[in-house]
Amino acid sequence: MHKKRILTGIKPTGQVHLGNYLGAIRPALSLAEEHEAYYFIADYHALNSVNNGEELRHNTYSVAATWLACGLNPDRTLFYRQSDVPEIFELTTMLMAFTAKGLLNRAHAYKSAVEQNITDNRDPDYHINMGLYTYPVLMAADILIAQADLVPVGYDQKQHIEMARDIAEAINNNYGKTLLKLPSPYFSRDMQMVVGLDGRKMSKSYNNVIPLFASESDLKKLVNRIVTNSQAIDEVKDPSSCNVFTLYKCFASEEECLALANRYASPGMGWGDAKKSLYNCLEREVGPIRERYYYWMSHQDDMNDILQSGAKRVRAMAREQIATLRSEMGLN
Amino acid sequence: MHKKRILTGIKPTGQVHLGNYLGAIRPALSLAEEHEAYYFIADYHALNSVNNGEELRHNTYSVAATWLACGLNPDRTLFYRQSDVPEIFELTTMLMAFTAKGLLNRAHAYKSAVEQNITDNRDPDYHINMGLYTYPVLMAADILIAQADLVPVGYDQKQHIEMARDIAEAINNNYGKTLLKLPSPYFSRDMQMVVGLDGRKMSKSYNNVIPLFASESDLKKLVNRIVTNSQAIDEVKDPSSCNVFTLYKCFASEEECLALANRYASPGMGWGDAKKSLYNCLEREVGPIRERYYYWMSHQDDMNDILQSGAKRVRAMAREQIATLRSEMGLN
Repeated sequence: MHKKRILTGIKPTGQVHLGNYLGAIRPALSLAEEHEAYYFIADYHALNSVNNGEELRHNTYSVAATWLACGLNPDRTLFYRQSDVPEIFELTTMLMAFTAKGLLNRAHAYKSAVEQNITDNRDPDYHINMGLYTYPVLMAADILIAQADLVPVGYDQKQHIEMARDIAEAINNNYGKTLLKLPSPYFSRDMQMVVGLDGRKMSKSYNNVIPLFASESDLKKLVNRIVTNSQAIDEVKDPSSCNVFTLYKCFASEEECLALANRYASPGMGWGDAKKSLYNCLEREVGPIRERYYYWMSHQDDMNDILQSGAKRVRAMAREQIATLRSEMGLN
Repeated sequence: MHKKRILTGIKPTGQVHLGNYLGAIRPALSLAEEHEAYYFIADYHALNSVNNGEELRHNTYSVAATWLACGLNPDRTLFYRQSDVPEIFELTTMLMAFTAKGLLNRAHAYKSAVEQNITDNRDPDYHINMGLYTYPVLMAADILIAQADLVPVGYDQKQHIEMARDIAEAINNNYGKTLLKLPSPYFSRDMQMVVGLDGRKMSKSYNNVIPLFASESDLKKLVNRIVTNSQAIDEVKDPSSCNVFTLYKCFASEEECLALANRYASPGMGWGDAKKSLYNCLEREVGPIRERYYYWMSHQDDMNDILQSGAKRVRAMAREQIATLRSEMGLN
C-alpha cells in the first residue's frame, strides 16, 4: 500500500529539553516509521527571531544533530534545510497573490501579538515584523511544495493547516485543476504534556526544563531538584500525583513502572531513591543520544552532506511543481 | 567614469498607449543610453491582478515586443523577466524578517484600497490580497537584487524607493556591514503628462487613449476624434491651448513645430489640416515601431532567448549576493 507523506518543520531555536524530546521528537520519529517522512529545519522561520548569523547557524546544526542523535534515519526520512530549497520562496510569492489579507489578520500568533500591544497601549502593529505576519504563507509553501498528505500538529495549531488548504484551494479553483495537494492535520495522541521540575508544563518560559543534553552530573542535579511532597521515608506514597513518577513513566518499561509503583506503595522508599531510579532510567535513554549528539556536532560537514542530499531530492520534485505552476499561471 | 546602474520594472498589464510611450518608454530608453540599464518585466507583480495564465503570458510577450520595437537594445540593456530570476523571491523572504508591518500599513496603494473599503462600509481589508499588501517588499527585492543606484519614479512613487532603503538599512545595520546597496529615486523631467483625446491626461480609465499599436486607419480615426474648439478655418488659432498641437510637439522636430505654429497664427488652416499634420508626424514615428512590434510578436522564441539571456546575467550576480546574505544570516 502507498504510504502517506508526513511533513514536519523543526524550528532551530536554542536548546532542546526533555519536553521537546518526549512531546515532539520521539513521536515524530515513531511516525516516520509508518509514513513517508519529510522533516525539515525551518531556518527561514527562525530568521524572524534570531538576527545573529552565528547563533542561527549553530542552532540549525544543533537541531540537526539532535534529531540524528535521537534516531532520525536520513536514508528513510527526507531530512533537509528549508533554505536549501529555494523553490519554497517562489511558491510563497505565488501564494501571496491568492491569499486574502483578512486570512492572515486572523492568525493566532499575529492576533496575540496585537492584543498584547493593545493591552500595553501601543500601536497594534508595534514591533511586529512582516516575517511574523506572513509566516502562515511561508508555512503553507513548506507544506505544499512537499505535497504532504499529513502534518502533525497540536489542536492549537490546526489553523496553519486550514490556511494552507484555503490558499491551495483558491489556486486550484482559479485555474480549474488540482495544482496543489490539500494537506490534512494529523493529531497525534503521543504528543502529551510533559511536566517540568516544578510540576507545571516543561517550558523554557517557566525555567523548569531538563535540557536533553545536560551532562550526567547536571542531569543528576536537575532530577534532584524535581519538586515532591514532604512525605517521610516510612510513608506510603502515591505515584499518580508524583512528578518523579510521571517522568519515570516516559522512560521506563511497563515492568519497571510496576516495580517502582510497588515501592511507592510500601514504606521504606525515600524521594532520593525514587529520583535515583528516574535518573538511571533517564540516563539509560539519554546517555547514548548525548554521545551521538556530540559526535554529530563535531562532524558538521557530514550533517551538511545529509541535509543537502535531502534537499536535492525535495528540489527535484519542487522544481517540477514550480514549472507546472509557472506554466499554468503564465509566468514563462 | 563608472556609469550608474538604473533599474525599471515594467508591469505587463494590457495594451500600451501613447501616454505610456511618451511618458515612460521613450524617456526610459533615453536614460538607458547614459546608464547601465536593467529593465525587467514584473510578471509576478502582474499575478496579483491577472489570474488568467494565457492573458498574463500574452501580456508579458506583448510588453517585451513593445520595448524591443521601441528601440530597447538588449545587447546594452539587461532585459529580463522577473520570474526568470528566482533569487528575487528568496531575497523577498529575507527582507520580510526585517520589514516592520507598520511600514507596509503606510503604503499608498494599500492605504487607498483601505480607504475605499471604509467609504463603502466594508471590512478595511475586504478583497485585498497579500500580493498587493506585500508588493513593496517584492519591489524592494527587485531593486536590491540588481544593486541598482537609481530607480526612475514619479514623485508619487518615491515611497517605494524609501521603503527599499528602509528595509536595506535595517539589514545593513543589524549585521553591521553594507550587505545591500541603497538605491536612490531618479526624478526624470521627461516624464511629462500626455494629453488624451479629450484634453485630460491620457489614461485607460478616462477612455481617451490612442493605443501605440493602433492600425493606420484606426490611428487616423482617433486623431480625428481629438477635441478642438469650434473655430472656423479663417480664424487665427492658438497652438498653446490646442490638444492637437500639444501632441504634435511630442513627435515633431523643432522646425516642424515652428512651421505648424505659423499656420495656426495665419487664417486658412482648418482643424482637419492640423490633424492631418499630427497624423503624418505620428505615423512617421509609430509606423516602424508597429511593424517591429508585429515582427517580434511572431518571433516569441527569439524574445524568450533575449529575456533568458538577460536573466542569466542578472542571476550570476544575484546568486553571489544571496550566498553572501545567507552566509551572513547563518542560513547555510
